[in-house]
This record gives sequence, structure tokens and C-alpha cells, in this order.
Amino acid sequence: MSDATLLGVCYYPEHWAEEQWADDARRMRELGLSRVRIGEFAWARIEPAPGLLDWTWLDRAIGTLAGAGLKIILGTPTATPPRWLLDEMPDMLAVDAEGKPRQFGSRRHYCFSHAGYRAQCRRIVGAMAGHFGRHPAVVAWQVDNEYGCHDTVLSYSEAARQAFRQWLAKRYGHIQALNEAWGNVFWSMDYADFEQVDLPNLTVTEANPAHRLDFQRFSSDQVVAFNREQVEILRELSPGRTITHNFMGFFTDFDHHAVAADLDVASWDSYPLGFLEQADFPGSDKLRYARQGHPDIAAFHHDLYRGCGRGRWWVMEQQPGPVNWARNNPAPLPGMVRLWTIEAHAHGAELVSYFRWRQLPFAQEQMHAGLLRPDSVEDLAAGEVRQVAGELQRLGAAGPAPAPVALLFGYASEWMTRITPHGERQRALRACFEWYSALRRLGLDVDILAPESDLSKYRMVVVPCLPWLSEQVAEALAGLEAPVLIGPRAGSKTREFSIPPALAPGPLQRYLQIKVVRVESLRPGWSASGPGFAIQDWLEHLETDLIPELCLDDGHGVLYRQGNLRYLSAGPDERLLGGVLQSLAAEAGLDPILLPQDLRVRRAGDLCFAFNYGPSALSLAGLGLMNSPANGHFLIGSVDLPPAGLGVWRQQKA
Amino acid sequence: MSDATLLGVCYYPEHWAEEQWADDARRMRELGLSRVRIGEFAWARIEPAPGLLDWTWLDRAIGTLAGAGLKIILGTPTATPPRWLLDEMPDMLAVDAEGKPRQFGSRRHYCFSHAGYRAQCRRIVGAMAGHFGRHPAVVAWQVDNEYGCHDTVLSYSEAARQAFRQWLAKRYGHIQALNEAWGNVFWSMDYADFEQVDLPNLTVTEANPAHRLDFQRFSSDQVVAFNREQVEILRELSPGRTITHNFMGFFTDFDHHAVAADLDVASWDSYPLGFLEQADFPGSDKLRYARQGHPDIAAFHHDLYRGCGRGRWWVMEQQPGPVNWARNNPAPLPGMVRLWTIEAHAHGAELVSYFRWRQLPFAQEQMHAGLLRPDSVEDLAAGEVRQVAGELQRLGAAGPAPAPVALLFGYASEWMTRITPHGERQRALRACFEWYSALRRLGLDVDILAPESDLSKYRMVVVPCLPWLSEQVAEALAGLEAPVLIGPRAGSKTREFSIPPALAPGPLQRYLQIKVVRVESLRPGWSASGPGFAIQDWLEHLETDLIPELCLDDGHGVLYRQGNLRYLSAGPDERLLGGVLQSLAAEAGLDPILLPQDLRVRRAGDLCFAFNYGPSALSLAGLGLMNSPANGHFLIGSVDLPPAGLGVWRQQKA
Amino acid sequence: MSDATLLGVCYYPEHWAEEQWADDARRMRELGLSRVRIGEFAWARIEPAPGLLDWTWLDRAIGTLAGAGLKIILGTPTATPPRWLLDEMPDMLAVDAEGKPRQFGSRRHYCFSHAGYRAQCRRIVGAMAGHFGRHPAVVAWQVDNEYGCHDTVLSYSEAARQAFRQWLAKRYGHIQALNEAWGNVFWSMDYADFEQVDLPNLTVTEANPAHRLDFQRFSSDQVVAFNREQVEILRELSPGRTITHNFMGFFTDFDHHAVAADLDVASWDSYPLGFLEQADFPGSDKLRYARQGHPDIAAFHHDLYRGCGRGRWWVMEQQPGPVNWARNNPAPLPGMVRLWTIEAHAHGAELVSYFRWRQLPFAQEQMHAGLLRPDSVEDLAAGEVRQVAGELQRLGAAGPAPAPVALLFGYASEWMTRITPHGERQRALRACFEWYSALRRLGLDVDILAPESDLSKYRMVVVPCLPWLSEQVAEALAGLEAPVLIGPRAGSKTREFSIPPALAPGPLQRYLQIKVVRVESLRPGWSASGPGFAIQDWLEHLETDLIPELCLDDGHGVLYRQGNLRYLSAGPDERLLGGVLQSLAAEAGLDPILLPQDLRVRRAGDLCFAFNYGPSALSLAGLGLMNSPANGHFLIGSVDLPPAGLGVWRQQKA
Repeated sequence: MSDATLLGVCYYPEHWAEEQWADDARRMRELGLSRVRIGEFAWARIEPAPGLLDWTWLDRAIGTLAGAGLKIILGTPTATPPRWLLDEMPDMLAVDAEGKPRQFGSRRHYCFSHAGYRAQCRRIVGAMAGHFGRHPAVVAWQVDNEYGCHDTVLSYSEAARQAFRQWLAKRYGHIQALNEAWGNVFWSMDYADFEQVDLPNLTVTEANPAHRLDFQRFSSDQVVAFNREQVEILRELSPGRTITHNFMGFFTDFDHHAVAADLDVASWDSYPLGFLEQADFPGSDKLRYARQGHPDIAAFHHDLYRGCGRGRWWVMEQQPGPVNWARNNPAPLPGMVRLWTIEAHAHGAELVSYFRWRQLPFAQEQMHAGLLRPDSVEDLAAGEVRQVAGELQRLGAAGPAPAPVALLFGYASEWMTRITPHGERQRALRACFEWYSALRRLGLDVDILAPESDLSKYRMVVVPCLPWLSEQVAEALAGLEAPVLIGPRAGSKTREFSIPPALAPGPLQRYLQIKVVRVESLRPGWSASGPGFAIQDWLEHLETDLIPELCLDDGHGVLYRQGNLRYLSAGPDERLLGGVLQSLAAEAGLDPILLPQDLRVRRAGDLCFAFNYGPSALSLAGLGLMNSPANGHFLIGSVDLPPAGLGVWRQQKA
Repeated sequence: MSDATLLGVCYYPEHWAEEQWADDARRMRELGLSRVRIGEFAWARIEPAPGLLDWTWLDRAIGTLAGAGLKIILGTPTATPPRWLLDEMPDMLAVDAEGKPRQFGSRRHYCFSHAGYRAQCRRIVGAMAGHFGRHPAVVAWQVDNEYGCHDTVLSYSEAARQAFRQWLAKRYGHIQALNEAWGNVFWSMDYADFEQVDLPNLTVTEANPAHRLDFQRFSSDQVVAFNREQVEILRELSPGRTITHNFMGFFTDFDHHAVAADLDVASWDSYPLGFLEQADFPGSDKLRYARQGHPDIAAFHHDLYRGCGRGRWWVMEQQPGPVNWARNNPAPLPGMVRLWTIEAHAHGAELVSYFRWRQLPFAQEQMHAGLLRPDSVEDLAAGEVRQVAGELQRLGAAGPAPAPVALLFGYASEWMTRITPHGERQRALRACFEWYSALRRLGLDVDILAPESDLSKYRMVVVPCLPWLSEQVAEALAGLEAPVLIGPRAGSKTREFSIPPALAPGPLQRYLQIKVVRVESLRPGWSASGPGFAIQDWLEHLETDLIPELCLDDGHGVLYRQGNLRYLSAGPDERLLGGVLQSLAAEAGLDPILLPQDLRVRRAGDLCFAFNYGPSALSLAGLGLMNSPANGHFLIGSVDLPPAGLGVWRQQKA
Repeated sequence: MSDATLLGVCYYPEHWAEEQWADDARRMRELGLSRVRIGEFAWARIEPAPGLLDWTWLDRAIGTLAGAGLKIILGTPTATPPRWLLDEMPDMLAVDAEGKPRQFGSRRHYCFSHAGYRAQCRRIVGAMAGHFGRHPAVVAWQVDNEYGCHDTVLSYSEAARQAFRQWLAKRYGHIQALNEAWGNVFWSMDYADFEQVDLPNLTVTEANPAHRLDFQRFSSDQVVAFNREQVEILRELSPGRTITHNFMGFFTDFDHHAVAADLDVASWDSYPLGFLEQADFPGSDKLRYARQGHPDIAAFHHDLYRGCGRGRWWVMEQQPGPVNWARNNPAPLPGMVRLWTIEAHAHGAELVSYFRWRQLPFAQEQMHAGLLRPDSVEDLAAGEVRQVAGELQRLGAAGPAPAPVALLFGYASEWMTRITPHGERQRALRACFEWYSALRRLGLDVDILAPESDLSKYRMVVVPCLPWLSEQVAEALAGLEAPVLIGPRAGSKTREFSIPPALAPGPLQRYLQIKVVRVESLRPGWSASGPGFAIQDWLEHLETDLIPELCLDDGHGVLYRQGNLRYLSAGPDERLLGGVLQSLAAEAGLDPILLPQDLRVRRAGDLCFAFNYGPSALSLAGLGLMNSPANGHFLIGSVDLPPAGLGVWRQQKA
């Protein structure tokens, strides 16, 4: 990346009187915005009746925006098919797990497996790309909108059933192969034909986990295929434009790495306050960070989508004020919109685009703030955007920023823990977030990567939870010089969701002489102590000749090492996880420092960034941060960070 | 009202052997009862087979009861259509939000929109009114029973769908008007025809709030129309009789003001213990008041339905002992049945009717107490009824009782907060109850009124939560001399559920120079402090030149005043709400006194009533109550109130 | 019983390569196992296509096992019908309460009322019994598997509806009899014909409790009939073999006494850790006993199923390590598998059979431990089994063990409290468990019996919760010399679920001059005190001339006595329940001793057993246990019990 982070905004010309467009465009530019995303929910206005395409208004809208100097990110409108399409094919709707069609009246009312709907999408995207694809102001496309939002990946429709059977037939070739792979002999679940296989919903008790995993894989593949069809049309009809999709935070129903592989850039929608309120955080965090968001929510996704986008990523929608969709909807602390924007820059975002330009006074999201209030007066965020636009100019390009630490996350592992958690708090995503947070508390920069990624450049690698782990990944990890920390459950399942013949950690056993012979999950409130730490939630019993590096007071080993590999055989508390990661980081020469609870830092190029997520002022003095900022030149801020405050200084070469 | 409060009872002759009727009637009279409600669940016995009307048993029952000197309140039996009706029209059933028909086997198994069922109701009511309408002992009619019980207002049936479309077509005239009113452009939700509009259930994510609000309005209108059809028949065939419906506590699915507008008298069913257990009260209240009911539950509804009935209201069903339908079912403290009865009198009830005469040993409500036990021995309540009958005679008419304080409550506002609460504790009904309770803690009498009511006689007006507030209401409030306190969210929505162009508080801005430019909802546990108080749950940010009367410690204004209008811009804690109301009441010359937690008082004519809802004895001495009761003449009780005790004294003219 | 407790194991030859069978069999014998249960989920392998019966593999498996000296318990495979059966009769599936068919893909996918499926079961069981019935190694049959698992007793299918109508017609003869029995007049619920009666699901509000109770009785009868059909075939075609069914802990959807009446032996599946985690125990117990199970879970079921089996009972599946199906799945403390086995022996089990031989690496239960790990290495339990096999040999037969205390439990009463609990914590099963636990804390041995059992041999009888109680039972209780303690709600309902004409305790009033005239249920947190105790949850008001033996501080009586009968009229806290039971036991000459929280004892023949269920070591010294074990001869263990430790000594004749 060679440019400064750009700023943009999401805009819906169809929501506003045409007379307002020019002034809106002018004001966008005045704020320092250069990109505008439009069109992704406009199908009913583009094609108000079957086949009746009306480009005129959108031509004028694009003309007006482009005329003001804005570049356009055009959304394909396939997340909101018009009502008339349902008259033609009522079965295009997705079906929920209870068998009920998910009706028209909001958005995402389609099934990824419906061939008719897929054809309609190709048609409208082709028409749109044909019309606008070479428009000089159109610089990028967003395909659809937030795949998976409102739990829309898994559909139990007839279309999905037929497509799943074909997918299985292709995967297994013969039904006996499926029976064996799934272990259907277990409860006389054998099939004689692929046509007998149903979707894994509404079974008397839980369906075979292999059945569920394949359905999850199939459903993810359907999203990939749906997305790819549009990408291919766009590449053909709109050459040279950047193609992206806006992923959504904490969504794991499909494989984001796989979808992103077809994109030029990964983007995501960043709502730190809404995510904090809705996700599974402790109540104390939800109160402490109510107006800031948890200090790691945004960064976690930045680092995840940078990985998905192979280095290229955007924030497509940035929360600018209170949202409407969480159980409670506080306002960001003044300064947080600026902070989030600079933080995205520090993590390498090419673009931060605010959602939305003006708060809309009607329909579902009328209580969602924008840069402007519904009465067109600037809302608080607008001032912060104006400020941050200048600051970003000052900072210039964030520069290449390979993080020293790699954290591996795979969607298949997340599905496995979701399908059979074995304990109420067991989820791969949770483990990854907690490990990520512990690394960030140590002041470390992290890349979140798919398991198969090239890890050769990293100085430290962590593997919080990879129940499925291939031979290649095991070999790669063992082949590193960097220290590697592997969490419990690694290699505990085969690709087909069974226990490996040699038991967990499966292929890692070649390099790490341990065998997990028993696992226990323990309810919240249970713990067992070691010197200065405790374990919780999960405990493994190992067969090994290795001498544990750490033991519980009763002698039960919890940390084992062989070569560069370390294995943690229990659910760590904060002290154990932090301590082990700190040791490894020190070993890797990374100078870890335990930061105050609310402080986060990030390096980019030769710049250092510090962010105060807490409710009180913080000082950077005396923390031992890299090249003591007191001596550095502060480009932004100073050693004293007020709430929502940040500091940027230039790192001295060692 | 010019008569003493009458007493009555609910009786089901069809449940008992005919030989028992005469003795039952005699004992009713002996207890002091003069009214008996019968018939509302008897359709299957009145018409055991299609068209086969059998009046004979009911003729005899009415004859027996009338012969003993009882006057009859006759219920139309439309809440329990007989089983054979379903054979004729199986689609008469309501359909739940998941699409499942709500089957026969209990009660209220009908859809308000089903034309066939509506015709059957007109037929049976016409037949009943024709037969009994001019019977001299029949003095009143109750239409149906507890509209809305068991969540039966909203039906997602085909009949409802068709009727909703017609309702919309009538309301909007053209589909484009609907599209604009709802803001359907938002997510390409435009319709081309009213026939495309479905009910707002089973959508992928939340339906358009305007869609939901219109469906709520439509559903409420269907109840109004259903009720009115019966009222019109009864007026024609049973002239001069009082017509009522028995509303149910804390039900808000339809507009009770609108239904009551067609009635002569509003009545409600008072189950203080059941409501406390089932409604959303803190656990500490549920324990403290387990055997008394929360001190404001009964009074709140008395004052609400007095408003609905334009001064005329009854308690149609009064809890006489443990009920069967709450999660836990304690027994009222001895004395509570008497207390509840006198309290209803103090609030102006014309009639208090106990449910039921004798505990029924079978079917769904067999654990619901009556005045008699199943073995016909008097249960505890019977003795209290005998006592209170004498006391009511002694007290005579309660006299005209215009309360000095008006509290405005509108069903449309309640629907709006239910459809989009924006915060987990945000409900108009909750706010109204809390404000009402705070006023009562100050010893004030309150009228609960529809927003459009004439407020000219009131000395103080409070508006806890009216998101929708018309120009007329705003003008009326501003035109008063009395102080007015307006709570947050007032005027924040248009009638069509969008944000007003000039933002909240909408039409109030003409009289109160504030503009709400941002709102936040905050999770339970969050609070911010001011001097001697705190705010919670909700916080608004205002644009105004007014100097706040109260601020948080950080300077954020929470109370603003212009002329007679005051606006509270945050969710108050008990101290803030109590303090502000006390100031206003003092300003209005109302001599507010902060009562002990468990004590409530009420004036009626020149009488003062005091009620002890607590578990311990209370003394009225030294409280500074009006015209010090120690000096007054106690008609009932004394200055010392035992648990469940009450005192009545004559107020000295000042 | 004259033999030592036998040990067995559950094995699935169809899950493993045939080459492994012989070695498995040899190792089973080596561990001390003599019984092996097989076949109960193998239908799809026995009959891979319609009518194509393949006995060959099972012949070889049985041959191999028998050749090693193992005796076979053969399961009928009707819990897992093969997929092809569904093509023939898709309506064989059960239907859930929401009306959704419960699909293929796991197990128990059938409706007990489906005549076609019943015929298929008779066919396959006939074929299996014809083929294997006289095989010398086949010593027993298990019918189906865990009736009721996954809530499969109640089915709302069309088949169930038709069968229910026939069942009702048979029971009531004429529809008017049903209307009267149910009290359908209540809400005009009268039927004109049995064909009008639907199943009691999806009603607008709760269906008539009599309707629900009859549906529960009908559903239970369907299980009895289903079971009996197989039993009759097996008796004919496999003479002399023991017939059993494996019941599941804490299941009460059908009458286990009635099903067991057709069996030779009752057996049950013992998962102490899974049951503790899933059932409604306080969180503190779930943590304290996470790795042991609550000290009374296993014993309660031992004593219940000993009653069901008229003295003959087995543990068919014994938990050997962590299971897969609870919310959290800890591992048993080392020693617990041995402890559970000896405890079963002490309670009189003829057989303890472990589930399963080897942990299966695939399908739904892949995380369920076995005696062997998936890699065929012995898991921890194997060592304990080897040890306990020797110990059981040493102990010999447990000898006749009539317990001195009888506790009455009836399924109809449990259904009644489930259908109308009246208070959130009211369940007959809960009361029985709590009383049982209190008795065991006093060191008493208990038989759990159906209400109609012969009680003449018992020295003390307790009746925790029998809302339905026949004249005969009342007479039998009153006719005993032993003291009897009767809990609240006894005799409060007639068989048809109405209140008895003379009120509760119904038929007991002839012998106990009390009449319950009012009951209250009170929410958790409420209590009322007496001297040294408190009551909670439930309080009854009585009419009686008896002087209470115990009163609350306010004078309200809570314990009444007449002759040998005592009646407790409130929900006791632990102190009250323990104290009253201790008094009664002392009166009965049973030398009750309040044991430490974690200790349990059991007598069998002249042996005494003590079990430490706690996390810490316990000493038996100084407890005053029978014939002071310090002086006795310890056959196993000593006076000091480590965690999971036990002691067995010979009781000296007094």
C-alpha cells in the first residue's frame, strides 16, 4: 500500500430528494471524503417492474457525485430483491431450521441455492455492470451486502436440499463412501442413495456431526459460488475495478477466506458498540466499554480481514454514532469515531467509509446515526471526520506492516466447536479472540491468518483452537524456527469430523510427543490452581514422556514443549494465558510489555500508535514502550491520552 | 355517580346442579351482593348444536337469581365458540406469529377478522338480546370477555391478511402513498399493489416499524369493530341497559380508549397478586407484596379505566383468594379483599364484582378461589365481603372525584415503544406506571387520560412517554396554566412512525425551544450522577438556548423549562423522578408529602382514604396528611393501620 | 438373588472390523466381564433393504463372543428403524407439540401409535427371535432402547390422534361421560363426538388439565402396548430368556411401573455426572459433585428400579468416563466407576454393564468414553472394572435386602404436578428426590414403591407427593402400624383431575381429620419461620380439630398427627424435613444418624457399605454407625475413606 488511508461514506440517493444530491456531494468533499458507496439496496428503483430497467436516476446520481469529485463504489443490489420477483418464484425464499419460509418485508430474503434467483442475480448484475462498468467514476464494486446477516447462510429449503444432495454426490461419489465417512452405522443411519439424505434439521435429537459439518461446508460453498458468479460478470464487464464484499463482524457461518479469495479487497463493517452489546462479553466489559467498544473488537477484525484480503482491506461501514440494532444503543464517546478511523489506518486500511451520510428518518434503521442528522445538520461524527481527514493526510501511508505474531484461525474449526462444543464455553472464535486480546495486552501486533498461510516471516505463532489441522499445517508449524503455542483441542478431529486414529493432537504427534487420552469440560465456576494461575473450562489428560513446563498444584501438566512447539492442555485463565504468551514473546525477542487494561498500541511502518479505550486519562510515560515516546516526535497527541485519545509518534530505528 | 358502590359476583349456573341455584342466590343476597354476572362462557349450552337454541335453563337461572333480588349482567358468549362451529369454518381460528392455527380446547379460539365468525357472533348476540334484552332483571351486558387475553389480538390468518390489505387500501388510497408513508424505498420494499402486502411476521429480520405499527392499529381496529357490532345489536334489542366490556390489567394490544368509546361503562378484572407475579416487577417487590399486590397495581388500573369509561367504571372481576394462573399463587393477606374493595370505591367504582362465586373443582381454573370453597363453605373472602358491604353502605356515594393530576397515556405510543424500544427497559407503559407510582408516593390523586383529553381542570399534568404527540396535544399542553412535566421521547415520532422533520420533541418545539439531536439507551447497571440523584437507561442530547434546571455532575442538562412546560431528557432514578414531581406539585399548590413506601392515600368527595399495603403496621400520625386524620372523624379504622388495614376519615374543608 | 453381581458391557460388533471381535471378546473376559449387550441399533445392518435379512455377520459376532465365554443380551433394534422404512410409510414419524414431524437422522424416529410401524416391529422382532431365540449363549433380551429418550413419548401425529380418540371412546363409552369427567362445560368445551377431540397441543391457552392427563395416560399406555407386543413374541420364540428394558434416569413421561410389569427384570442406564449437570440441581451441588455425581442420584434410581422390577434389576449402561451429551462433561474422579459399581451391588443389582466397550471415533457419541480408548488402549475405567470384578467375587451375593423405609412414588401424580404445578418449584419427582435424599442423609435404606404396593413389611413409610391417592392406598396407609409421613398435596385430586368433593386430602380424611381449605405457592426467596426451621414454596391452610405437632412462629400448624399418620402441610426446608424424618425414624426404632454431607451408607444382608461422594477424605469413626465399623471386619477399605473411597464391613448381629 502506498497511499494514505482514504475516507468514504455510504449514501442512498434514492432515499433523498434529487435536489439535495449536489449539496450532499459538495459537503462530502468538504469533509474530506473521496469515496461514496451507493446502490446496494436499490433494485426496486432500478427495476421497478419485471424487466423495466430505469437507469436514469442512478445515472444522474452518479453524475452528480462524480461531478463533485467523488469516486463511486457501486453495490450490486442482490441483498434486496424486489417484491415482484416473489410472484415469479415464491420458492426463492430461504427456509429456517423449523421449516418456515423467511418472508419478504425486510432484506436478505433469498436462498443461496435457488437456481432461479441465481439467474436473476446474474441478469441484474450483468445489466448494471454493462451500464456502469466502464464509467470513469466507478472505481469499485461491492457484491451484495453482508452475507450471512440475520442468519441467512443456512437455508433448509427444497432448493438447498437438492443442491446439498448433488454436492454430496460430487464429494463422495458413492453413497457407501458417505456412510463410511459419516459413520452412519452408528444408529442405523445408513443411506442407500443420495436422494435419501435430508438436511440435518428437525431430527429427533442432534444429527450426526459429520452430517452437520458437511451441510455447513456446503452452505459456505453456496455463498462462495453465489459471490463468484457476480465477480466473474463484474470482471468481464467492468475491467480494472476493485471488487469487494463487506463482511460483518463476528460472523462465522461461511468461510470468509474462501469468499475473499475471489475478491480484490476484503472489507468489513465496523460497529464496535453494537458488537460489544450483542456479543458474548462479560457484563462488566459491556459497561466499562459501552461508549468505546471493547479495545480489541475493531482491531481483531482489522487483522482478520487484512488476512482475508491478502493485505488489502477496507472498513466499508464505520459506526458514526449510536446504532439502532443492539439491545441497548449508547453513543460513542466524543473522539471515538476519530480514534476508530486512525486505528484502522494503523492496521493498514486503504479506506474507511462511514455508514451513513445522513440519518434516515423512516423505516428499520431510523435510529441509526449518520454523519448528518436527519435535519441535515452535521452530527458529532462529521467534525471528527473533518479532523481525521487532515490527520490522515499528515500521516501519509501507513507503510508495510508485517506483524511479528501470527494467530491461526480456520472457519472449519469454528464450525466443529459450534456443532459439538463439548462444554458450554467452548468456541474456536472465543478462544481466538481471547488469545488475540492477551497478545494485544502485551503490546504485540498480530496477523490473523488461515491455517494454511505462509508463516515463514513470523517471529511467533499461536494456534488457539484448531480441532481440524492438516498434515501440511502440522509440518509447517514444526518446521518454523519461531516459537509456536498451540491451544487445547488442536488436531482432535479429522477433516470428516471423527477422532484421528492416533488420537489428538493428530498430525502434530509426529512433532510433539503427546497423546490426548481424555478431555473434560467443566462448568463455569470450576477451576484448578497452579503456581500463580488457574485453569478453567477445559482440561486434557495426556500420555507423554515430556516433562511439563507448567503444572497444576496436583502435578497435572498443563504446558508441554518439544522443539519450537508448545502445547497448552487446559483452558487458561487470564494470568496463565498472559504469562505463557509473554514468555514466548520474550523468547522471540519481541519485548512484550503488559499494557494497562485500556491501552492498545500498534506499529505501522516506522510509526507507533497508542489508543486509550478507557473511561479515564492514561499516560504513556514509564510504560517502557518502544523507543520511549517521550523522546520521540509526536505526530499526533502527546504522552497523555485523554479518554478516546490517541498518540502517534515516529519510532526510532534501533 | 350518586350511589354507593355496589357489589356483585360472577356466577356460572351451567356449572352447578340446578337444585343449588336458589340457595346460591339467597346466600349472595345475604352477603350483600346485588349484581350477578352470568353467561359469558355458555354458548355450548345455549346452542348445543347448530341452530338449536336452548334458552330454558338460562331462563330458569335468571328467574331464580332475579327472584332472589339480584340484577343480572349478561355476558355475550363470543369468547368461547362451541366446537361444532369449527366444523363449519375451520379457518375461523386465529393464527400465531409462527403461522400455526390456535386450536380449540381452551378459549378465545377465533380470529377477529373472520367474517364468518363475525356473522355468527351477530347471530348469537342478536338471539340472546332478542330473548333476554327486555327482561327486567337484566340491567347490563358484558360484551365478550377480556379481549386480548392469551395474546389474541394479533392474528396472522388469511382472513387477517385480506382484511389488513383492505384496511391499508382504505387508509392510503394508493399503494404509492403507502410506500412513501412507510419509507419502503429503504430496502427495496416497495409494493406495486396492496395485494402484495403481507402481514409483518416471519420476515428475515424485523419488518418495517411502520408496517408493524399499521398492523397493530389494524388489529386494534378489528377489536373495536368486533365490539361495536355487538354493542349496536344490544342497544337496539336491549334498550336502556348498561353495556360494558371487562378489560384486563396491563393489556395493551388494542386501544382501550377506542373500544371503551362505544361502551357505557368501562370495567376491568383486578387480580393484584397474579399481576404482580407475572408482570415485570423487581424480585424484591414480588416478595414484599406477594400477598397484597404492589400498592399501585389496582389503583393504576382504576384510574386508567375511569378515564376510559369517561368517569364510569366497574371492577368486573375482583380476586378473592389465590388464583391459578400465575407462576406462583399466594393467598391475599386477610383483609386484602376488603381493602381492594374499599380502594375501588375510593377511586370511584360503581360496582365491584368478585370472581367467582364458588371455586370450581374441575377444568383449567380449579385452583382459582371463589367466595365459597368447592364444598360450598364460605371461603375467607366471603366474610370480608359481608363486612365491606356494610362499610360501603356506611360510606355512601364516593362523590365526584376529579383528581388534581392528569397523567397522559396513549396506546399508539405504547405500541411504538414496543415495536422499537431502542433500549431493553424502554416501554411507555413501564414509564407511565413508574411515574404514576411516584405521584402516588407523594399522596397525589391521579387521572390517567388519553392524550387528547380535556386537561383544563387539572392543576398538574405529566406526560411520561408519548413518542407520538399531535399538534393539538402540544398546543393544549402549552396552553395550560398548570405545570406540565414531559418525559423523554415525547414527540420523537410522527403518526406514521418516522422521525419528525424538525426532530423530537416534534410539535412541542413550538412551545419549548429544545431539539433532541441524539439519544442513547444504556444497559442496566449504567448510571450518571447529578447532585442527589442519578439517571439511568436513557439519555438525550439537546440543542437549546434554555438553561437547564438540573444538570448531571458533568454539566449535561437533564431538566429544562419553558413557561409551564418542563422536559426531562433522561431516564430518572427514583430520587430524580420523585424530586421533580414533588417540586411541580408544590408549585401547583398540591401539598405533596412523601409517604412511607407501603402507604397510599386517596381522596373522594370529602372523604380521605389510607391503605396499608405493607407487611407491618403503620401509623398515620405525624405524616402531615391532609387535615390531620387524628383530628378528623374516622368513619372506618383509626390512625393505626395494621397490615391490610385501612382508614377513612372526613376531610375538613380548608 | 443368590449370585454375586455380574459385570457386563455394551458392544457393537457392527462398528468394528470383524478381525477385532475375537480379541475384544478375550479382553472382556480378562477384565472379568461375563455379559455383553449387542444389537439394539443394528436394524440397518440386519436388514439392509426391505425384507433382505442378513443374519450372517451377527451369527459370527455372537459365535465369537459366546466362544470366549460371554453370555449375550440381545437388543431388539426398534429404536433405530432404517431409512428405507420411511419410504414405505413417511407418516411413521412422531410429531412434536408444534406440529412438526421429527425427522430421520438420529434415533427414536417413530410414533408409538403408528400401526404400520408396530407391525414392522413385530416382524423384525419375530424374525430376530426366531433366528436367535434358542441360541444357548443368548440369555436375555432388551426390548428397544431407552423409551422416552429425546422426549419421544408424546407424539402429536395423526396416528396418535386417531388412537387417542379410540382410547377415549373405550375409556368413557359415551362422549357425555367424557364431557362430565373433564368438566368441559367450563369454557363451552363440550364435544358431541369422540371424533371432535383433538390432541391437547396448540390450544390458545392451556388445555383442560383432564384432557392433558388423559393424553399423558394414553401416551404411556401406548408405550406399554408397544413394549408388550415385543415381550409376547420374545416369550414365545425365545423361551426361558430374561426380558428387560433399559429405563433412563429422571424420565417420567410414561409409567415405568406399568412397562416393568411385563418384564422379568427392570434395568436402567446410570450416568451420574451427566444427570447432575442436566437436571435441576443447585449450581453449588453441580460444582461440588461435578466428578462424582450427586450422592443420591444413582441410589435413587437403584431403589426405584428395584421396585419396578419387583426386586430384580440391572444397571444396563454404567458411565465409565466423560459423556458427550451434557452441557459440560467432566471426568469421574478416579475410583468412581468402582464406587458406582459396588454401590449398585449394595442396592441389589444382579448385573452392572458398562457403556461402552470402546470409545467410537465417529458419529454423535464420539466423545463418550468407553472401557477402551478409541485406539484400543485401556481407558481408566478398565482398571477399575478389573479391580471391582475381584471385589464383587469376594463379597458374594448381596443377600436379601428389604429396606426398612418405603417411599411412595406414582407416575400419575408426577404428571399431575407437571401439568398444573401451581408453583414454580412444585414437582412430585423433585419432592420424592428431596425426601429420599433426606432419608439417606439419616443413614436409612429406602425402597421406592408404587403407591399400591404391599407396605406391611416396612417400619416407616413416607409419601412425599401423591396428589392422586386411591381409597385403597389411604386405607392401607392408615392400616399400618409403622409411622407414615404424608407430604402436602396428598389426595388433592381425583383420578380424573378434579378436586375431591370433600377437598384434600381426599380419601385420607377418613383416617386423618384434616381438610385442606386453601393452598398457596410462594416464590423462591419467600419463607416463614418456626422454631429451628422454616417453610418455603408451599403452604396449606387446614380445617381440623387436631393440635399441630409443629407450628410456625405465627401459630400456623405445619405438622399434624392422627394415629400412625402424620401430615406435613407446607414445603419444608432441609431442617424441617430432616428433623421430622429423624423423629419418625427414631419412633420406628431405626437409629437414624445425621451423616456428613458427602457420606452415604447402605446395608445388604449382613454387610454394611459406606461411600464417600465428597472431594475430601472422610472418617467413619465416631459417627455412631451401626455396629461401629472400627470393631467390625472390613472386607473392603477401612474406617478412612479417601475421595471416591468406600468401605464394606460385616454387621454384627445385635
